[in-house]
Amino acid sequence: MKLGAVAERLGVSAERLERMVGRIVRSSDWPLPPLLRFDKAVSGIEAGTVVFDEDEIVSGYPKIRRAMMLSPAIKRHFPDGVLVEEKMNGHNVRVVMVGGRVIALTRGGFICPYSTEVAKDQINPRIFEDHPDIVLCGEMVGPKNPYVPKDVYDAEAMDFYLFDVSRKGKRDMEGSATARLLAEEYGIRSVRLFGEFGAEEATEEIKEMVKELGRRGREGVVIKDPANLKSPIKYTSSQSNCRDLEFAFRYYNDYGQDFFFSRVVREGFQAAEWAEGDEEFLDRCLRLGRSMLSPMRETVEAKIAGEDIVQEVEILVKDLQTAKDFEEHFRRMGVRATFDPPRPSPGGHLVKIKRLVMSTNDKTSSVIEGQLW
Amino acid sequence: MKLGAVAERLGVSAERLERMVGRIVRSSDWPLPPLLRFDKAVSGIEAGTVVFDEDEIVSGYPKIRRAMMLSPAIKRHFPDGVLVEEKMNGHNVRVVMVGGRVIALTRGGFICPYSTEVAKDQINPRIFEDHPDIVLCGEMVGPKNPYVPKDVYDAEAMDFYLFDVSRKGKRDMEGSATARLLAEEYGIRSVRLFGEFGAEEATEEIKEMVKELGRRGREGVVIKDPANLKSPIKYTSSQSNCRDLEFAFRYYNDYGQDFFFSRVVREGFQAAEWAEGDEEFLDRCLRLGRSMLSPMRETVEAKIAGEDIVQEVEILVKDLQTAKDFEEHFRRMGVRATFDPPRPSPGGHLVKIKRLVMSTNDKTSSVIEGQLW
Repeated sequence: MKLGAVAERLGVSAERLERMVGRIVRSSDWPLPPLLRFDKAVSGIEAGTVVFDEDEIVSGYPKIRRAMMLSPAIKRHFPDGVLVEEKMNGHNVRVVMVGGRVIALTRGGFICPYSTEVAKDQINPRIFEDHPDIVLCGEMVGPKNPYVPKDVYDAEAMDFYLFDVSRKGKRDMEGSATARLLAEEYGIRSVRLFGEFGAEEATEEIKEMVKELGRRGREGVVIKDPANLKSPIKYTSSQSNCRDLEFAFRYYNDYGQDFFFSRVVREGFQAAEWAEGDEEFLDRCLRLGRSMLSPMRETVEAKIAGEDIVQEVEILVKDLQTAKDFEEHFRRMGVRATFDPPRPSPGGHLVKIKRLVMSTNDKTSSVIEGQLW
Repeated sequence: MKLGAVAERLGVSAERLERMVGRIVRSSDWPLPPLLRFDKAVSGIEAGTVVFDEDEIVSGYPKIRRAMMLSPAIKRHFPDGVLVEEKMNGHNVRVVMVGGRVIALTRGGFICPYSTEVAKDQINPRIFEDHPDIVLCGEMVGPKNPYVPKDVYDAEAMDFYLFDVSRKGKRDMEGSATARLLAEEYGIRSVRLFGEFGAEEATEEIKEMVKELGRRGREGVVIKDPANLKSPIKYTSSQSNCRDLEFAFRYYNDYGQDFFFSRVVREGFQAAEWAEGDEEFLDRCLRLGRSMLSPMRETVEAKIAGEDIVQEVEILVKDLQTAKDFEEHFRRMGVRATFDPPRPSPGGHLVKIKRLVMSTNDKTSSVIEGQLW
């Protein structure tokens, strides 16, 4: 890789880029191909940007900001109307072809061997032959998603849903319309489009959509500019916030406190904006309280019963090598986990993965042994 | 003040102490008498330690650690039995006589003019004549407590309750028995003593006490060693945790996230230890959820209605100068507040104080104007 040429394309000096390598820019030669990965945003370069060489730069997927209150956010950001898509709850990947191989990059810019296998299996490779510079931005969702396992989608293991496209060397997204045309042409699944709405009606429409999504265990929506000239914003259901909490409080000491706090604050703003009646509001309070105490109580009870607290997830791989590679990938990401031996299953091999949640184990043990806080 | 002599008494070198002054040791000459105050713990010196001169050192009140689960904590720390007192919910003061004046020091080592007025009014001064080196450690509680206003005590404005005594120049506490004898002799109010219990029965007894205290809006208990050889520990009611949250979520962006998190975690451990049935557990979940969402919703609604979010407290002073001094005290502590003009009232003058909660005001305004998170 010629660092000078890469620096030029990124718009920074070669010296600056050289100084960044090993610090905020990490190099990796496993799995192939070799790459540089931006750990953090810097000088207008998105975090998660990946450089294979000067002609093969995949920009990081930009962070989508969150509306805390729908009505004022829509009035302020989309006075001319919106396009609404479902926000699916999985992990964000960018799928590209580099040196003839299809690979899936995680948000942080790692090549994920498991996501790569799924992408290869589910995405018609002709799209990369016809558009060698295309970057497919989508969500991997399903019960066998090892990052965010979810049963609420119509996926047997893990499915790819397209939501936007970009091009190598470009930072901007081409938008929903382009992505949908390509998805249709090449038979790629894409996220659900709810439609276009005027700014006036959008708030009420989205509120009803989000409530219905919540009831069905779904996450929420992404609100986009139909003309793709403005950054999208996201908005999520109460049930999704609470399910996040329910998952996290099982491992209460291994999550950041801002994870908890931000979700409670979202609930507060939503309750205020939706001006709920007593019954609905008490339901929300109970849902919130329960989403924190139920899993935490179970964790303490499990520990008292002598069990280890582990986060169990599962993957379904076609090729046994993918499971081995995924184990190495977790190790490199700094995740501590044990992998059970693969079990044959329709569609491939199931591998159970137990992530260790050390801090929650240690804290819970110490409290039930009488240690003080 | 002779720094060399002070350093010797504190057990540090004069050079070290000199280097600390202006950094973790702050000097103050208002209100009189002049003093040095330890902002943080260092070299075995408690945070909040105050030095008037080498013979007039008042050690900081030691932090009382918290049991997260009663039964294992008692077995581990007090296998020979416990003495249980009520933990009152106000602010901790140390009352001493220095240079012929009675003064009340806050936990952090500030002279609080208002607490001082109350202490002078309520504590028989003969105790300081008989014991010039005594340090009275107690809680100031009541509806006119500007730090922690509470209606649940039998106090009209703010009352002092003794819970321990120490001596100038000493770090150790003399314990409950000594404090009670002195309280009786000099007619000083002291915190409620629930009694002594064997380690076996203590857990169940304390659980019932804490439940009853919770129902009455009280905070909880402090568990002490009857022989005063071990550090006490505290344990609080669910209702008290939730009332803390209810107060704090009104000003959700001005409190540390650990304030919220620690209280939720306490609830989780208590629910697990008390092995609650469904109904009781759902009550706890609802109480917790509501204690966060109700106040936050009210804050957002108030802001939408164009109101400023302020923390209103009130003090009842006998002397108008005390109100002026308290205003200066708040200013020096870095609290931003406005003081209304005093209104005559039975027992003195009422002064309404509005503390500004800038961060909550700013964040709430920005969200209702459509800013994203």
